[in-house]
This record gives sequence, structure tokens and C-alpha cells, in this order.
Amino acid sequence: MLICSSRDEMKRREAALRFIAALLNQEGRSSLYDLSGLAGGFPVKKSDLNLLETYSGPAIFSSNLQKEGTQHLGGEKVAAFNRTSAAILATLLALVKPGEEVIHYLPELPSHPSIPRSVKLQGASYREFDNLQDFQLTDETSLVIITGSTMDHKVLPLTDFNRIIQISHAKQIPVMVDDASGARIRTVIYDQPRALDMGADLVVTSTDKLMDGPRAGLMAGNSSLIDRIQDKAHQFGLEAQPPIVAGIVRALENFKPQRILDSLERRDKLHKIAGNVFKGVEKTPTGFMISAANLENEITPEGNDNLTKRELATLMAMVLLREHHMVTIPAVGMPGVSDTIRLDISSKDAERVDDNQIIQALKESLEVVREI
Amino acid sequence: MLICSSRDEMKRREAALRFIAALLNQEGRSSLYDLSGLAGGFPVKKSDLNLLETYSGPAIFSSNLQKEGTQHLGGEKVAAFNRTSAAILATLLALVKPGEEVIHYLPELPSHPSIPRSVKLQGASYREFDNLQDFQLTDETSLVIITGSTMDHKVLPLTDFNRIIQISHAKQIPVMVDDASGARIRTVIYDQPRALDMGADLVVTSTDKLMDGPRAGLMAGNSSLIDRIQDKAHQFGLEAQPPIVAGIVRALENFKPQRILDSLERRDKLHKIAGNVFKGVEKTPTGFMISAANLENEITPEGNDNLTKRELATLMAMVLLREHHMVTIPAVGMPGVSDTIRLDISSKDAERVDDNQIIQALKESLEVVREI
Repeated sequence: MLICSSRDEMKRREAALRFIAALLNQEGRSSLYDLSGLAGGFPVKKSDLNLLETYSGPAIFSSNLQKEGTQHLGGEKVAAFNRTSAAILATLLALVKPGEEVIHYLPELPSHPSIPRSVKLQGASYREFDNLQDFQLTDETSLVIITGSTMDHKVLPLTDFNRIIQISHAKQIPVMVDDASGARIRTVIYDQPRALDMGADLVVTSTDKLMDGPRAGLMAGNSSLIDRIQDKAHQFGLEAQPPIVAGIVRALENFKPQRILDSLERRDKLHKIAGNVFKGVEKTPTGFMISAANLENEITPEGNDNLTKRELATLMAMVLLREHHMVTIPAVGMPGVSDTIRLDISSKDAERVDDNQIIQALKESLEVVREI
Repeated sequence: MLICSSRDEMKRREAALRFIAALLNQEGRSSLYDLSGLAGGFPVKKSDLNLLETYSGPAIFSSNLQKEGTQHLGGEKVAAFNRTSAAILATLLALVKPGEEVIHYLPELPSHPSIPRSVKLQGASYREFDNLQDFQLTDETSLVIITGSTMDHKVLPLTDFNRIIQISHAKQIPVMVDDASGARIRTVIYDQPRALDMGADLVVTSTDKLMDGPRAGLMAGNSSLIDRIQDKAHQFGLEAQPPIVAGIVRALENFKPQRILDSLERRDKLHKIAGNVFKGVEKTPTGFMISAANLENEITPEGNDNLTKRELATLMAMVLLREHHMVTIPAVGMPGVSDTIRLDISSKDAERVDDNQIIQALKESLEVVREI
């Protein structure tokens, strides 16, 4: 066992970041390929820099944020948060009282931990569902949350979406959609409507997922709800600061759905070739992935006593980083992060690496892990 | 009554920001003088811009943050948060359990609301003191917080500081110092030691107060405590994001205590002249201020039925902004902000405005408010 605690995982992350720092210092940004799909970006203009102060920043960028944000998500008003998790915490503090109940509906259980964790902090109760048969509100329910698309990019069917909103509104319960990646995956790839256009009261998205903005949360919806949530955010220091708001505005201005659509053909081709190298490769909406279980099956089909499947995935991700300069989540993510190796073909850096390079990197990394 | 609710205050803030936006667009940044002492800044280099991504950013800037941060605050390790309020929330979540007690000692009651608010959210109890006679720990106390310097820059005497740390450590209770502005006011102006050098376990400071960094919280102290607090921060989305971390690093690199010391002579001179215009002017560590009560006394010594003292201060701050392009807190602050008009002579923009301009602005603004 190499990974025994979240402390070991923190060391793994720190080692990965040290390697990236050395690489960037020696060979520059173009030597690195961040295919994690979570690279984030900070596309502010050089001329923006001297305006990113506490009062000048919002003065200049908040009206642009309203314009670009409502254009992207719909709704009456938007607000920006330090992270999507921070937006969710602010929402629970504003809309749910201790003792009340939050119901969460998602494409597949379990939820991202940030939702039940914030509900618990507020002293409310929590239940989650992934099928309409079991879904039921009670008299204590004060908020319904829908996850539009999971971390592994599994998307909620439209019929479920509409039904949950209908049931909740029949009881006057507000609906918030956690559309972290969904606000783009659902709309651009699956041609679903925006969450607010389906009648949700609030939607929140992560501006680093399928777009090149900073890691941050952008929320839109009903004006008076947004005001109450923003008030809580200011109280606990959860709102995005001016430089981040400027980064979000510029990323929204630059956002091109067509770039995601253009990557789909390449994804299909790469998924097919990668499948010849290794049959446990699965397609995702924006690329392909190797789950830790499939990796274990491929490398030690008879099982092994030395390494867990998470350790194998971590090893593979570290080899991809060190030997091929390709960034994936199991190498750089926080402790407890997904152990799936996902290569995102819609990411900006994917444009700089050719198909052959990706396939060779996979093939050679598999060989290295096999030998270890 | 003009200000009846926090909604009215939000409208006041929005009007001020609209005015600033128009001014910046038409006449550029040099037409504005932010003397709030809370201007914040984002001194990243243009060459930093393409490194401010989710994984490249920390790879490059986290080791610099450790180096510059521990040099500024002392301690074994530092961590950066979206705001000082967010750092305090993360600390309470990590170190205090529901049902336990937090004791807060400060130069003057009452506390900034962020501390009791976060204690309440965690389900703990809270007591605050400003004198050693009343100060007492109980068996439930699990954290002691000391405020080094208040929002109005009132500083805690060293003897109190040492005594509180001694009493707390005798009972093995960790001490966190909220040194938002104190980490510079106390050390640079009052020649007090750094909080960690006095034996505190943790200290947090605001990187926009008496230095030109972004609005953010920088915490330093005992390594294992910092790790636990940082873990909670990541869970709820409270940590500073890479662009903000880069801004903090550059601001720490640029920080010159001498600039604050150099401003003191000018402060004394200005305070004296301003006192001739209007006797309710009080000296602060970095400039001078007019409290709302003193303003009311000056303008309507016989009292008035039309405007509260907060309204008078807001009006004065708005006139200073519109007619003289000088930013002070009662004009641009969030709802519930201090109604003291404070002019910070150590702030960067103070270098661009001469003494006469400041005194004339005060004189003329007082006249305008008097007429209204």
C-alpha cells in the first residue's frame, strides 16, 4: 500500500506540482499538456490589470458580468463565487433553515460531497435520489437540488429534469440546478435547454469546466433569491474577488460552443484507436477515460496484493505526467479526487498534441506501470 | 430617512460604483483617488498571466507563497484564503466542535460580525471581552481568538496580548490572532512583535490592508493546524484561487514598511490643518477620520429630524466621490459597513494628491452637505 491517508495523497499532489513547476521554469508553458479538462484559465487582458482593485474592479466588470452571465445561463441576475462549492454553501445558508430538508436528484448516486456537507453544516437533513420512483418531498423540504451532469459527465434525461421541477413547484419549493459542467455538456453536446429555461429558479456552473475561465462558480436565476444568496456570501467571504470576476467575464466573452462540437469527431476517432491499445477505454462527452477498475483488469487481470486500483491509476497518471507531460486528475487532484484517468479532447491544450502522441503516451505509460 | 434597509445601502453602493465606472472609462485610473485604505491591488506581472491556471498556478506560486508568507508573518507554514472571513470560517470548522466555546479578546467591543457569525454556524457558543478582569476560560473553550487591531485601527496593548496567550496555553487551548490590519499596524507603526513571535499558534491577515495586495486572507502558524484548516477550506471552497495567490505573492514581494512610516509625518501635518477646518477630525494610525457622530455635531449641532448620522456620513462620502473623485468607505462599502469617513494617507493613491487638494475637498464637501 502506497496511499494510506489523505496526507499521502497531498504528498503525491505536491510532487506532481513540483514536477510541473520545474518543467514550466525550464521549458515554458508550451511543454505541458493539461488534458484534465479542469485546467482553468485567466484570460484577462493586459490592459485589465490595473483595474482589478477592490472598488474599481466591480465598478468596471460587474455590469459586464451581468450581461455575459445572463446571456450564458439565462435568468434575471447573476452572481460570482470563489468556487461552485462556495456558491452551494451560500445558497443553503440563505434558503434552508436548520431542521428543514434538502432533496437532491442526480443522474447517478452518490452526490459530490460538497452538497451533503453544506446541508449538514446548516443543520438540515438530506436525502438523495437517482430515480423518479423513490423521489418524494416532505413538508420539511425547503430546497430541491438537481445535478445536471455528474463529475464523470453522466447527464440527466430531460424527462426527469422536467418532472422534478414540476413536482417541486407544485409544492412551491425552489429548485437549484448544480450544472457545474452540465451548463455546457447538456446544452452544447446533448442539445438540452438551459436549466433556467426549463423553469429552475437557480443554476450554478463552474467557469473552468468546458470553458477557459478561472476555477469559480457562476450562479444565475431569480433576482430576489440571488440577492439573498449574495448577502450570505459576503458575510462568510464566499464571493469571487475582482480579478476572478474579470477572468470570468473574459472567459464568457471568449466562449465558443463550436470548439466543443469540433472536438467530438476527434474524440470518436481517438476513442476507437485507444480501444485497440487497451479495451477498457470508455468514451466521455468530451474525450475518453480509463477507470481505475478497468486499469487494474488490464494490468493485473489475476489481481495483485501490492497495489490497490487507486494506486495503479495514480501511478499511471504520474507516468503520463513525468514521461509525456500530460496532466490528468489522479496526478494533480486534491486528496479523495476521482481515480479515473480522463483525457479531455475539448481542452485547449489538446489542440497542441497530435493523435499519435496521445496514443503512444498511453501505450508507453501502460508498459511502464505493467513493469512496476 | 433615506437609508431604511440594507437594500437601500446596496443601491447607494451600486450608484457609487456606476459613478466610478463612468469616471474610469472617461478619464482613466489616474482621475480617481482611492483613499479608503482598502483599495486592494493586483500587482501580478504581465508575464505571470499565462501561468495563472488551476494546476500551473499553484505549481509556480505556492513555493513563493510559503517563502514570502512566512517571512512576513513568521510560523512554519502559510495558507491563502478567498477572504479573511473565509479563513476564520475554515478555522472554526477545523478546530471547534459543535457545543464547544470560542472566547474572543479584542481592544474594544464589539467584534467584527464575521467571528460570532461563524461560531454560531458551527453550533458553538461565543463570548467576547475587552478587559482582563472579565476574561475567563471554561472547560468547553476550544479556541481563543485575539483581535490585534480593530477596524478603526485601535491596537491591543502588548501586556494584554501576552497575558491572554499565557492563560490560554496554560490550558492547552490554541490561540488564533485576527491581525487583519494589525500584522502591519502593530508591527510597523507600534513596533510590537509579530503575533506568532509572541507565541500565538495561528495568525491571519488581510492582504489588502496597509499593503497593495488583493482582498484575501493569509494565514500562518503551526503546520499541522494549517493543514487541518486548509483541508476544511478545500471542502467548502474557501481557499484563494491561483490568480489571487499570485497577486498575494507579488504584493508581499513589493511590501515596503518604510512607505507606511514615511506617511506618518504627512498624516500629522494633514491632521493638524484639517483640525482647523473642522474640529471633530481624529488621528488614525495611517491617516485621519471623521466619525458620523462628530460630523453630525459639526453640521447640525442642534440636531435635525431629516437625516440620521449614518445618512449624513454617506452623503459626505458621496460628495467626496462625485465632486473630488476621492473614494472612502461609506460611499462604496457593503451594507452595514462603518459610517466613519477615513482618509488613509499611507494608501498608494495618496501619493498622487496634494495636501491642499485634500483639505479643499473636505472643506467644500462639508459646505455642500451643510446646504442640503
